[in-house]
Amino acid sequence: MERHFEVELQALRDRLLTMGSLAETMIHKGIKALVDRDESLVQAVLAHEEEMDLLCIEIDDRCFTQMALRQPMASDLRLLVASIKINSDLERIGDQAVSIALRARSLIGQSQLKPLIDIPRMAGIVQEMVRASLDAFVAQDPDLARKVIDRDDEVDGLRDQVFRELLTYMMGDTTTISRAIDLILISRNLERIADHSTNIAEDVIYIVRGEDVRERGDKELRKGLRLPMPNNG
Amino acid sequence: MERHFEVELQALRDRLLTMGSLAETMIHKGIKALVDRDESLVQAVLAHEEEMDLLCIEIDDRCFTQMALRQPMASDLRLLVASIKINSDLERIGDQAVSIALRARSLIGQSQLKPLIDIPRMAGIVQEMVRASLDAFVAQDPDLARKVIDRDDEVDGLRDQVFRELLTYMMGDTTTISRAIDLILISRNLERIADHSTNIAEDVIYIVRGEDVRERGDKELRKGLRLPMPNNG
Repeated sequence: MERHFEVELQALRDRLLTMGSLAETMIHKGIKALVDRDESLVQAVLAHEEEMDLLCIEIDDRCFTQMALRQPMASDLRLLVASIKINSDLERIGDQAVSIALRARSLIGQSQLKPLIDIPRMAGIVQEMVRASLDAFVAQDPDLARKVIDRDDEVDGLRDQVFRELLTYMMGDTTTISRAIDLILISRNLERIADHSTNIAEDVIYIVRGEDVRERGDKELRKGLRLPMPNNG
Repeated sequence: MERHFEVELQALRDRLLTMGSLAETMIHKGIKALVDRDESLVQAVLAHEEEMDLLCIEIDDRCFTQMALRQPMASDLRLLVASIKINSDLERIGDQAVSIALRARSLIGQSQLKPLIDIPRMAGIVQEMVRASLDAFVAQDPDLARKVIDRDDEVDGLRDQVFRELLTYMMGDTTTISRAIDLILISRNLERIADHSTNIAEDVIYIVRGEDVRERGDKELRKGLRLPMPNNG
């Protein structure tokens, strides 16, 4: 029985890893759709969303079944509760990737505003954050989780840089405003993916240490809820 | 023992209700800070965030303790799992209210762009959605929950209206761009609060019916992942 429970937990970890790779793939294809102006990649992201929804329901069911059938000890219960939260963060990362793909579709239909540098860089970092947060989960490695949390600032820095640059375009030529705002919103989608990865990393620390890292001071530092305007920089 | 468990579940519901009212208050004060250009209300929202963080940790602990100490039946387990998710949605609603308050602070420091009509209307609707989703939770009323989900479209409609109007301002006068984008981002904060309320309403349906409403077709209809650009309208 105990042995069977271990097998179930391993299967759960594997499914979460699968969901994590799928989330990464969706981000990658969404941004590639934008950079390469490739509508077929938009379609690909939308198709992945169906897969992700099914995975999400399956993982929730697995967690719930294990909680209901076994009487898990505190540490296993923490793992199951954290898995439910991680599952929901991964699903929302998928939602953000879909939103990026749809904005890419809108931009593909118009002339290109500028070559994109910072947005693909942001995307690279957030993909690494998603992967590292899941690696930290599987390895139960709080130090790796902490590194994910620390990278959030980098993403916020790029978000501000993207904003400032696009503001200059908009001020100089009002016909760029719609496209510039779509790009700004894509940078916000990426920022939210980084936030979800940070949530996952916090859950890993919670599983391993039984410690809640959401205490006030840490949260403020972490979130960088700074405003996007240059005059607030 | 069974009786004591009931008392604990009631206490849990009460705390979630308290958190829901706090979330509503934070939205209300954040938008009032913006409309009345009142910095003291920004401070009030930031102070509420501390309260909310403590409540959030307390509720998670209560859920975890009940899962670990009792061996809850399927329906109680569904209630506890849903409570953990609802708790996390309420915390994120609080985060959005903080973000609104900080953007209000930035706007208070500049001359007023225009009298605000649609944003306060959006805020009124999302506050009602937060309240109704919690009412549905306490009453275990799936019909009320369904009504919350249905209102999401209204919010998306106002979001698009806010965008179109502000786009006109930006095109006409580039000095309005920064302020207009802050207002657009506030409308996005409100949209996300509506999304979180929708998540809560879905959890209520899950508790009551044991049914997962996140199947694909429903999700697409519900989310209205439409682009903000008028040319995608």
